[in-house]
Amino acid sequence: MPVTLTRECFAPFGTVIETDGHPPLLINDGTAQRYDRLARATLARATDAIGLSIFVARGRRFPMPIQALERHPLGSQAFVPLDGSAYVIVVATDAQGRPTRPQAFMARPDQGISLDIGVWHHPLIALADSARFLVVDAITDACNVETATPDGAPYVLTRPG
Amino acid sequence: MPVTLTRECFAPFGTVIETDGHPPLLINDGTAQRYDRLARATLARATDAIGLSIFVARGRRFPMPIQALERHPLGSQAFVPLDGSAYVIVVATDAQGRPTRPQAFMARPDQGISLDIGVWHHPLIALADSARFLVVDAITDACNVETATPDGAPYVLTRPG
Repeated sequence: MPVTLTRECFAPFGTVIETDGHPPLLINDGTAQRYDRLARATLARATDAIGLSIFVARGRRFPMPIQALERHPLGSQAFVPLDGSAYVIVVATDAQGRPTRPQAFMARPDQGISLDIGVWHHPLIALADSARFLVVDAITDACNVETATPDGAPYVLTRPG
Repeated sequence: MPVTLTRECFAPFGTVIETDGHPPLLINDGTAQRYDRLARATLARATDAIGLSIFVARGRRFPMPIQALERHPLGSQAFVPLDGSAYVIVVATDAQGRPTRPQAFMARPDQGISLDIGVWHHPLIALADSARFLVVDAITDACNVETATPDGAPYVLTRPG
């Protein structure tokens, strides 16, 4: 069962991209509030680049067995919902190169996340069909994905409340 | 009067971030379409970083005189609407360090834009109050903004159709 996504709980895995709790800067002659530097896009190698992509996802069905997780060794990866739809993030800690103890977080439609470099995670778990997400991650010609089955008992994600 | 935002017309100033006309990759076991590398976040100096921020903008009133434009010499700057609201982009070509011939583009709610490094542009022109935008731009301690009045006749933006 996913728990509420908060900055504190998510800190071991990355950053929550949200306006809550951040004092904004007033910019553009007072016509806009800038919630500045909520996350940072990072690369492992200076020769790669940061790209912006759009994912259009199909809503998942539950209960959903978590069979394999992946991680990206060459850069952070941010997901920001574009259509006001909630989603689930499954991440896991690393134990000797294998994901262990998966944890699920329920993200509000106004919360994005940025996964730190190399954090084990499940591919995007959208709750609605045709949900669009902006994705900010590494542009690289090298291999930037590893996949593995989580250690321990089978993990099944139940329908988020 | 703003003209329709298209990749071709906007090419001298930057990139349109949209799924239209891009063949997607099927990823995540077929549960998502990835419209890959729609734009690239770039920096003038390798020592700076790329950050993700959120702008919350007030809707503008029209007719709106375009008094000053700005540009960012140290990095590209992308705006992606998060609330499905349309907006206007005003950009200008550079003539000997001054903006000249401002042009206005009307962006659909599903279109983001990335301004190339150093492109003259007006601060964000939202059409709805509390419109949220994801902004991807340089994190730097150096000065990353120049402002100037456009050359030529006064330019007034009329209400977009």
